Amino acid sequence: MLRVGMLTSGGDCQALNAAMRGVAKSLFNQCSEVEIYGFTDGYKGLIYGEYRLLKNDDFSGILNIGGTILGSSRMPFKYIGVPLEDGSDKIARMIDTYKKLNLDCLVVLGGNGSHKTANLLREKGLNVLTLPKTIDNDLPLTDCCPGFGSVAKYIAVSTIEASFDVRSMCRTSTRVFVLEVMGRHAGWLTAAAALAEGKNGNVPYLVYLEEKPFSLDRFIDDVKEKLASTNAVLVAVSEGVHDTEGRFLCEQEESRELDVFGHTKLSGTGKILEEAVRAKIGCKVRSIELNVMQRCASHMASKTDVDESVKIGEEAVKAAVKGETGKMMAFKRISDRPYFSEIVTVDAKEVANKERLFPKEWINNQGNNVTAFALDYFLPLIQGESAPPFANGTPRYAKLKRIKPEPKLCK
Amino acid sequence: MLRVGMLTSGGDCQALNAAMRGVAKSLFNQCSEVEIYGFTDGYKGLIYGEYRLLKNDDFSGILNIGGTILGSSRMPFKYIGVPLEDGSDKIARMIDTYKKLNLDCLVVLGGNGSHKTANLLREKGLNVLTLPKTIDNDLPLTDCCPGFGSVAKYIAVSTIEASFDVRSMCRTSTRVFVLEVMGRHAGWLTAAAALAEGKNGNVPYLVYLEEKPFSLDRFIDDVKEKLASTNAVLVAVSEGVHDTEGRFLCEQEESRELDVFGHTKLSGTGKILEEAVRAKIGCKVRSIELNVMQRCASHMASKTDVDESVKIGEEAVKAAVKGETGKMMAFKRISDRPYFSEIVTVDAKEVANKERLFPKEWINNQGNNVTAFALDYFLPLIQGESAPPFANGTPRYAKLKRIKPEPKLCK
Repeated sequence: MLRVGMLTSGGDCQALNAAMRGVAKSLFNQCSEVEIYGFTDGYKGLIYGEYRLLKNDDFSGILNIGGTILGSSRMPFKYIGVPLEDGSDKIARMIDTYKKLNLDCLVVLGGNGSHKTANLLREKGLNVLTLPKTIDNDLPLTDCCPGFGSVAKYIAVSTIEASFDVRSMCRTSTRVFVLEVMGRHAGWLTAAAALAEGKNGNVPYLVYLEEKPFSLDRFIDDVKEKLASTNAVLVAVSEGVHDTEGRFLCEQEESRELDVFGHTKLSGTGKILEEAVRAKIGCKVRSIELNVMQRCASHMASKTDVDESVKIGEEAVKAAVKGETGKMMAFKRISDRPYFSEIVTVDAKEVANKERLFPKEWINNQGNNVTAFALDYFLPLIQGESAPPFANGTPRYAKLKRIKPEPKLCK
Repeated sequence: MLRVGMLTSGGDCQALNAAMRGVAKSLFNQCSEVEIYGFTDGYKGLIYGEYRLLKNDDFSGILNIGGTILGSSRMPFKYIGVPLEDGSDKIARMIDTYKKLNLDCLVVLGGNGSHKTANLLREKGLNVLTLPKTIDNDLPLTDCCPGFGSVAKYIAVSTIEASFDVRSMCRTSTRVFVLEVMGRHAGWLTAAAALAEGKNGNVPYLVYLEEKPFSLDRFIDDVKEKLASTNAVLVAVSEGVHDTEGRFLCEQEESRELDVFGHTKLSGTGKILEEAVRAKIGCKVRSIELNVMQRCASHMASKTDVDESVKIGEEAVKAAVKGETGKMMAFKRISDRPYFSEIVTVDAKEVANKERLFPKEWINNQGNNVTAFALDYFLPLIQGESAPPFANGTPRYAKLKRIKPEPKLCK
């Protein structure tokens, strides 16, 4: 009998259910005797002993559903060491749950923070295998993360569609659209806007990532330069752009000054750029925060992302059966064209403390766009469509069974 | 020889190109000798005599492209009477262009404001036929407007997808999502969020429209009531909700007070509700402004919307050939199930000065949702998908020829 625990931790994203399905279906197929314990709501389920024994059927019809059927939660690593209200130690409780259930392995799907906790549990002697999961795509040692390809596709398509909109209205008045894209520390997602290249009805665009310091003056100059030869510009900006001292745009003096112009109050990065264009160029401008729709638009999922997520889940099972522990499953790209990627294992410990930034050498010299190397990287990841079937005008998702925890172990 | 002028006026939307295609293809099919003059950038093209003689080919491959191939502009009716810089009268110039080109008819695609100008031109003796066009769906005398069904579909799908996202994270902490939807005066679009009914993973939702006065206190009570039995609530709110005196939410004293709590600066309606929930309930909350993606997400176009738009364009030609003038083409719904709708002509004059609000009787007594009658209305309009084909990961649109005006007539 193989007993496997599984949990999803951190912000949800697409392809998370697909990866779990890969793990589960493969376990049920390969092992005649297996029990899968789904811990609910991330590490909290492990701490409080809240889980559900999952059946093959629980993983059916979930390929195209956004979010995670197990539920998730964010638990910053610094809180792991803080005792619970009753004084008990979170780590001890997690180990306790693992042992009480007599688990052979714990599979964790998560991003940077989740890997720190996973690594700690491994150090305490638990068998832990991890799967990368983050729309930010900033985990090291893997070519990409499940979930990323789908968001990149959504951003590319949104950029193209917005360009047709701005273009329709731009001949009689100059217009600038600013798309604010998620990604607090790395610019992978924003860079995907460049996939609109050649498909955006000839509306030029500018792309600003966290990896190069951002200057509001230079931004205004860039927009002016584009506007010298056209009436419309599309700007994609990472929410986390910052200056040479690392101050986020919204913390900068210069942007605060804009309030003096008497315009509406600022909030995010996109709004700040909007106000700057209005104040310093004076043309029509609109900012669009793609917001949570980026990570939940499952009708725009990339088939490559979904397929690879299932596959990495399946490979995780092989590694688990082999008894590997302290490893993260990872993609290793062999070639761009034709796209070929292997699944390997890497040391989870190496993942825990690093962020993989967008390569600076893929950003152009002016710092306002990406190079063709970036497109070579992105293109394979957004190939194919994996929309759910539609019924009566909207997506038809399999009726999700509420994965409710069974009575708590630890109470 | 039939000589037809055509222009699109006001904000762009989906299905605008489809409706023009319906007009053009039908003209080329029915009339052995026809010339179509496409005025660029709305009424401005007519004023400045900027047009292009369009060929059958110009209307190929545009069914799924958002925006308008002719370009558009907003020209509020009050500016129509204001002379141009050279002192010339806009109306006289429009009539002049019409006569110089010896037009038999002018086809205008536009919303409320555009109909006022169209009506004026008709009063001056021009033959004018109009097609309804607005995502707001607030034109009277027609069951719906081309473009609306596609946006309604986008909003329904977004609401469903956001619900799966919020649901994934809601068990360990209470969460509220606020979706701010377009529509400054009428709640049609926001009401479409109710189409998520039964498909949203059991996340309850609240819907607030302009048609009932909005109270921030009652809103907070509504959210609290929902949160009594669940951990997640989805709120869809029209950007233009206002109090009993008609003041927009962002103009209200109460919302300004929220700044006292020291939270980030407010901007739109969604942000105000977000801050109110944070301050008065204290749970996790996020606001999402669907923004321009609503009207330009052509990958989410409703097939019914696109098909009906082509058809209303074709019917406009029949009316034009019959010599009708001063008419707007309109949909008259015969039945919901099965859905059946006729195309009729109505007096454009009657359209010019009215807004069709969302029926108050379709809003529930608490003013926080819509009734089943609304769903009966919406459902037929969002049926079917009309996405463009995808190539290499993103939509493949026909290469748009830039419709550039020929040398100005009036200079």
